[in-house]
Formats: sequence, C-alpha cells, structure tokens
Amino acid sequence: MAEAAHDTKSQVDARVDDPLMAELRALLGDRLSIARAVREHHGKDASYHAMEMPDAVAFAETTEEVSAIVKLCALHKTPVIAFGTGTSLEGQVQAAHGGVCIDLSGMNRILEVNEADLDCRVQAGVTRKTLNTHLRDTGLFFPIDPGADASLGGMAATSASGTNAVRYGTMRNNVMGLTVVLADGRVIRTGGRARKSSAGYDLTRLFVGSEGTLGVITEVQLRLYGIPEAMAAAVCSFETLAGAVDSVILTIQSGIPVARIELLDELQVRAINDYAKLDYPVKPTLFFEFHGTEAGVKEQAEMVGEIAQEYGGANFRWETRQEDRTRLWQARHDAYFANLALKPGSKGWATDVCVPISRLAECILETRKDIDAAGVMAPIVGHVGDGNFHLTFLIDPDDPEEMARAEGVNDRMVMRALAMGGTCTGEHGVGTGKMRFLQAEHGDALAVMRQIKQALDPDNILNPGKILPS
Amino acid sequence: MAEAAHDTKSQVDARVDDPLMAELRALLGDRLSIARAVREHHGKDASYHAMEMPDAVAFAETTEEVSAIVKLCALHKTPVIAFGTGTSLEGQVQAAHGGVCIDLSGMNRILEVNEADLDCRVQAGVTRKTLNTHLRDTGLFFPIDPGADASLGGMAATSASGTNAVRYGTMRNNVMGLTVVLADGRVIRTGGRARKSSAGYDLTRLFVGSEGTLGVITEVQLRLYGIPEAMAAAVCSFETLAGAVDSVILTIQSGIPVARIELLDELQVRAINDYAKLDYPVKPTLFFEFHGTEAGVKEQAEMVGEIAQEYGGANFRWETRQEDRTRLWQARHDAYFANLALKPGSKGWATDVCVPISRLAECILETRKDIDAAGVMAPIVGHVGDGNFHLTFLIDPDDPEEMARAEGVNDRMVMRALAMGGTCTGEHGVGTGKMRFLQAEHGDALAVMRQIKQALDPDNILNPGKILPS
Repeated sequence: MAEAAHDTKSQVDARVDDPLMAELRALLGDRLSIARAVREHHGKDASYHAMEMPDAVAFAETTEEVSAIVKLCALHKTPVIAFGTGTSLEGQVQAAHGGVCIDLSGMNRILEVNEADLDCRVQAGVTRKTLNTHLRDTGLFFPIDPGADASLGGMAATSASGTNAVRYGTMRNNVMGLTVVLADGRVIRTGGRARKSSAGYDLTRLFVGSEGTLGVITEVQLRLYGIPEAMAAAVCSFETLAGAVDSVILTIQSGIPVARIELLDELQVRAINDYAKLDYPVKPTLFFEFHGTEAGVKEQAEMVGEIAQEYGGANFRWETRQEDRTRLWQARHDAYFANLALKPGSKGWATDVCVPISRLAECILETRKDIDAAGVMAPIVGHVGDGNFHLTFLIDPDDPEEMARAEGVNDRMVMRALAMGGTCTGEHGVGTGKMRFLQAEHGDALAVMRQIKQALDPDNILNPGKILPS
Repeated sequence: MAEAAHDTKSQVDARVDDPLMAELRALLGDRLSIARAVREHHGKDASYHAMEMPDAVAFAETTEEVSAIVKLCALHKTPVIAFGTGTSLEGQVQAAHGGVCIDLSGMNRILEVNEADLDCRVQAGVTRKTLNTHLRDTGLFFPIDPGADASLGGMAATSASGTNAVRYGTMRNNVMGLTVVLADGRVIRTGGRARKSSAGYDLTRLFVGSEGTLGVITEVQLRLYGIPEAMAAAVCSFETLAGAVDSVILTIQSGIPVARIELLDELQVRAINDYAKLDYPVKPTLFFEFHGTEAGVKEQAEMVGEIAQEYGGANFRWETRQEDRTRLWQARHDAYFANLALKPGSKGWATDVCVPISRLAECILETRKDIDAAGVMAPIVGHVGDGNFHLTFLIDPDDPEEMARAEGVNDRMVMRALAMGGTCTGEHGVGTGKMRFLQAEHGDALAVMRQIKQALDPDNILNPGKILPS
C-alpha cells in the first residue's frame, strides 16, 4: 500500500476498501480516520519541515491495539509512524513514505505512582504537564521540560531534555523502563523498577531516542523527584557573550548543582522584552534557577553571584516570588513566539547543537558572526550548562534563496560543533533534518546503527526515512 | 580451533603450530602466551565460578592490535574473551568455549584529561585508582568505586557501580563514549564529548554492560567530577534491620544527596570488627558519606541524623578526620576478606540483587530468614541507597550439598527480587552465574537481546556462553 498510497495530494476516501484499511477499520471502527484534515495534522510536527501526510490515522487506546495495528501493517509491509503531540522539531512525525500514523494521545492513563520509590508508570500519550498536575499532592514532580507540553512517550522516543537537564539529566537518565511494540507486533517490556541493573543489554536506552524507528513505545516507567524545599531564580546580564559563557563554565566546574542556566543573546533578549513587555537590559543574559534546601539555595546563589561578578555580570536580579519566577520562565518558554514577532510573517526554524563546554563561547561567537554575515535573522538561546544551544532562524520557507543562506549557517554550525568534539543535535533529535550529518558524526558506528535497525525491523516499516540516511 | 582446543586439562605447547596461533604469533611475538599458568590465571575471575582457561592469551597494546587479533579469530571462528583485571564476579572472563583471551592491561595510557570539561579518555586497561592518582593535582576525580581496583574498560563492559552510585550513578551514567572493536575487527567510536546528544541510537549504553559479547572495548571517555570541598562520614547502629532500611528510604525520599549509604547486617559487622580490630556495636549498621560544601555537608548530616534517630538509630558516630574515614571505608572494602575469616577455609560466593527501595527491608529480612533456615553462612551488605544488596556465601565449593543449599537461597533471593519489581543483578552482571534468570526477568525482551547479538556477532565469537542462555 505504501507506494500506491503515497500520493499525498489526492483525496483518499476511496482507499477505504484497500485490504489493510478494511482490516484496520474492523479493528478500530471510528478510530481509524482517513479524513484529509486529520491526516494533514498528523503529517507535520512543530518544525519548518514540510507536511507529509500518512494514508490513515489510527487512534489506539491500548498496547494490544497498537500491537494489532503493527501486525497488520507488517503483513502489508506498510509504514507505521507513532504520533504523540506532534511537537517534535526535526520532522520526526512526517509520513515520508506514507503509511499508517498511530496516534497515541488516547493512551493517556497514569498507570501507577509509587511515591515511596520515586517512580511512576504512564501510558505513552500522557503529557508531562498532565503527569505533574496528577502528582501535585504527592510532593513529587517529573522535571524534564522541553518547553512544549509533549507526551512522555514522544519525549522518550526523541530523548528529549530541556532547560533543567543540567541538574536532572535527560530522558535517557530518567526513563527506567518501557513497553514497546516491535516491528512484528511483539510486545516487550524493557528495564524495570530497580534503580540500577546489570542484567543484560540496556534495551531501554536503545529505544530512548530511536524516534519510532525500532519500535512503538506504549508505556513509560519514569523516575520522579521530590519537589525541592526551596527554589529561587535570578537574571544577570553581561557586557559580552564570552563573559556570560565563562561564568557558566566556572559554575559547572565548581560543581554547583544549579537547576537551570539559560543563555539568551542580545537579539533574544530584545525579542522577549518586546513580546512579554519586560525590561531586561538588551545584553547577553543568563537566567538561573536554584533548587535545594533554603540554606543550600542561598549558598548556591551566592557562589554563582560571585562567579558572575568576576566575569562582568551586572544587574543581578533576584526573582524569589513565585509569580516573578513564573514570569521569567514563561518568557523563556515563549521565546519561540517572541522570535516570530521579531519578524512578522516569518516561520521559525529551530536547530540545536551541543559541544564540550570549554568550546561553547567560541562556538556561539563564531555562529553569531556567521549568522550576521549570512544576513539571516536568528536569535540564540541555550541550555548552556550542558553546552547545548539553539538557533531559531526566522525565515520564509517559500524563499529558496533565504532558505539556502539559513541552511549554509546550519551546516557550518553543525560541522563547527563536530570539529569541537560535539554533536549535531543535543536534544531535538535527527528526524529528517539532521540525517545528513550522522555519517560525519558517527563514522563507521553508523553502520552498526543500521545493523540494529535491520535486525529489529528488516522490512523497514517503522518510521522509515528517519535517523538513518538511505 | 575452539572445539579441538577446549581440552583445558592438557599441556598445549604443541598447539603453537595451529594456523591461528602461528598468525597470532607473527602479529604479537612474545606477547602471545600459551603457558599454562598464564592461561589459568586468565580463565578465572574473582568469583567462585570454576576456572575455564583460554587456549592462548594475547597481550594487546593498541586498538589496531586488538582489531587484528579479532580479525584473525573471526576468520577461524574462534572465541575472543576480553580481560582487564579479572575482578569480575559472575564468571565474565571464563573461556567457556576456549579461544583467545585478549589481555588489555597493557593498554594503560591516559589519553587525555579535559579539566575544563570534566572529562577524560583512557585506554581500557587503565584502572580506576591509576586514573585517580593521575588526576590528583587537577582537583577532579572519577567517583565510581566497585571495591576492586578494576580496569575502566572492564568496569564499562560490566556496567560496574558500587558504594557511591547513589550519588554519582553507575558506569552507564558516566561513560560518555567508547572505542569498540566489533566481531569482524571493525573499529568504531561511539558517543562523544558533548554532555548530551540525540543524534541516533545510543550505542554507548548498548556496549556498556554487554560483558564483551558485542565488542571489545579498547578506549573509554569518562565524566569526571570536582573533588568536593568537604566530606564527612558517619556510622550509626540500629536495633532492627527494618529501622536501618527505613532510615535509608526516608533519606532518599527527602532528596538528601548523600554520597554513600552502606548497610551491614549484624554478621557483617561482627566480621569486620574481628578482621579490622574495630569495635562497632554488633547490630544492623549504616555507614554514611556526605559530599558538598562545608555548610552543605553539615546540613545533610544533620538531616540524616534526625531521620536515623526517628528510626531508632543510636551511637551516631562522626568520622570527620581523614584517617578515620579511610579506616571506615577500608573496613567496608575489606568486608570480603573479613567474611572469609569468619569461616576459615571457606570460599566466598558474592551475589547481588536490586529492588525498589520500598521493598528493600522486606527483601533483606526474608532473605536473612532463608539463609538462616538453610543453615548456610552469608553476611549481608548493601548499597542500600539504590535498593541494591549483596550476600557473600561462605562455602566449600567441593561440598555439593552445601553448594546446593546456597544455590537454593540464591535462586529464591533472585525470584523474590523479581517478584518485587527488581532485577537479578544490580551491579555484578550476568556472566554465567545469572544467565538462567534472564528469561524470568526479561520475558520476550530477551529475544530482542538475542537479535542484537546475532546481528553484531553472527558467528558468536565474542565471549560466547555469557549473558544469553543457549
């Protein structure tokens, strides 16, 4: 079906009598959709990558149903694309070869919360905010925060992280186990509830970040954390980007367990000032958050304040009240929309790299110079405690000349990061957008990824056209 | 060669003209040994598992040499077993099907230390103590401490952890990248120096813990940490084991970032008192270590002290002087030898499981009851902050009746841990000793491990007979 059905321009209602469609219809009834609007919605994520719609969308409600759908698709050698909230950033959900999109948003049950063990198990469609709302009365929370209110299955599949990975790690560190539907429909459980295990190959971390190409994640076991006794936030602006980054480096080297350190360059500060009616000095700026005991937070903040001062940090401003902290982080979260407002009518193209922290200032400064030389507009923000930073190109995707300039900047940024011992993506993943850099990054290790893909999905039905360049 | 050569009882000097041996001899000269004493030394680890010697031992000095050795062995379909310091605990280095042992201890160069980025790269044969000695003047250290002065390649291969995993994680969390020789001799580099990456499948964590069955690790990139400004240790004894464990649970739940929490049961305390001439009360006892700033350590310790008191902890004793702390942890490290002295002439059989921390007290208490009912002697120690605990059976391996009783206790302990959502091994790994529990632990996921093994090592030459039951 995949080939024949890949004419994404046509109306497809006629295809309902395709044998696979009939089988899926028998399984799912109304929960199989071939409506064009539904298919279009599922053929695109939150990125600039073009929509490529699936032939049908299956709204699954149980692991057994996902297994049954995958079995049918396997029989027909038809692509299967898992879909959570569609908030990925590198085209992970595009139906590059048509096929059946499995929408997991209906799998939204929180299966267990083990307060004493600081863990929980959720269905893949539960979003991080839903989980945290559910946890509110327990004194626990799930910290990973990629910005979007993404599904936890999708966050596991794309190895999401975000602003507080510097303290709490990424999904790789916080997924304890998974339920996965394999390419032939078999259902496995990986990992478990023990805090550590040496019992065989670490399948959990193989599936985390595999972007639906090795299996469809239907349940996730997660680590939870106690809500810290105290939290405080601070903002500090610097005369130079280098001063800001050097402050971050010394903070990390000093082992200060800061919960978030976000860098905003001047253009990014201007964007959020305009958008959120704020008045931060238009200079390279760090946002900090500290978690701990009352005394611990105070101590961390004092140490960081001294470091910042040493590197020319000024206007160190405390945001201790809950509403001020919320405003601060809301502004950071809204950076994407603030950026779009900088250049009305533009689309945003978010891209990220990650480098060893000692190279971060150099990498950001060279990239900023390249952006300006190329005459494109792209604010920089970064989860700089990890050496991870992001550009948002503000572009018109229908202007091939501008797109080419942006692509040039992106390519050079990635190759710069790789030359510094870094990676082509710290947290957005590969999807289709970063595929062409994997050979340069991994060399012969890429062939091993292919061997694993071939072993687990010999007919290449699981999210084909993603991660591994063909 | 493997089959013919597997008569480990015979003298094998004649085998020097075996074609593979001749090729290896041409490659390595004197660094290929077929001396019986050398082969015997390499056919056994630090466990009770019987010696099974390889046909030859190749002392490799470079990754290229390891690659050349593996290529020759692949041509002859001859097993290859990687060997670091031989301190594994579940028979990981036994030459279960003969073959060539590659001794990596000569690959002992520290390749780079990136102080600013808190990372380093070492050859596989560098031991953790050698690395820490080398780092002494940098203010950095590598925290993972499995007790033995193991090689870092071996620690990666077995996913080692140890007493301070509760704070610093295990090898899975601290290996950033690897150089690996694959079953056909290809050399790949996995991971990199970025703190996080979403660029494709996480091969690093696939090889970590694969015990030489998927590739031979020749280089390891590691995270380093700043030596804490302050450290303190404490000892506290409890009237009941449950009181001790409940103190640990509340400490973890409270998010106190304690660096080590070790539990010793009464028998274990008696053993180390006798062995190291100490005078700890012969009661269930916790050893603590705290890392942080001066104020942070004081705060952590006060909080833990209050928790311990709540659960009947008494004789809370501070060890603030360096020499007292050293004596304390030396006593803990010497537990194995102290145990052997409890029953002169016995051998030690160390085994471990890991459970969700809420089940820890129950699991330990039931296991203690079972040990006593079975009439075997086995002190219990545990890295209880992770829910991980160890038995050391003091046994005579030549007494089949006693061995059977110990095996019964071990089997029941593993099945008890699995029933509680735990794992058959928290840190010792599978080797041959825990193989028979993997089906019960992983179910159908075990088949996926086999698929990966089959894809990466189709002729099963890499450490055959380990991890995956045949």
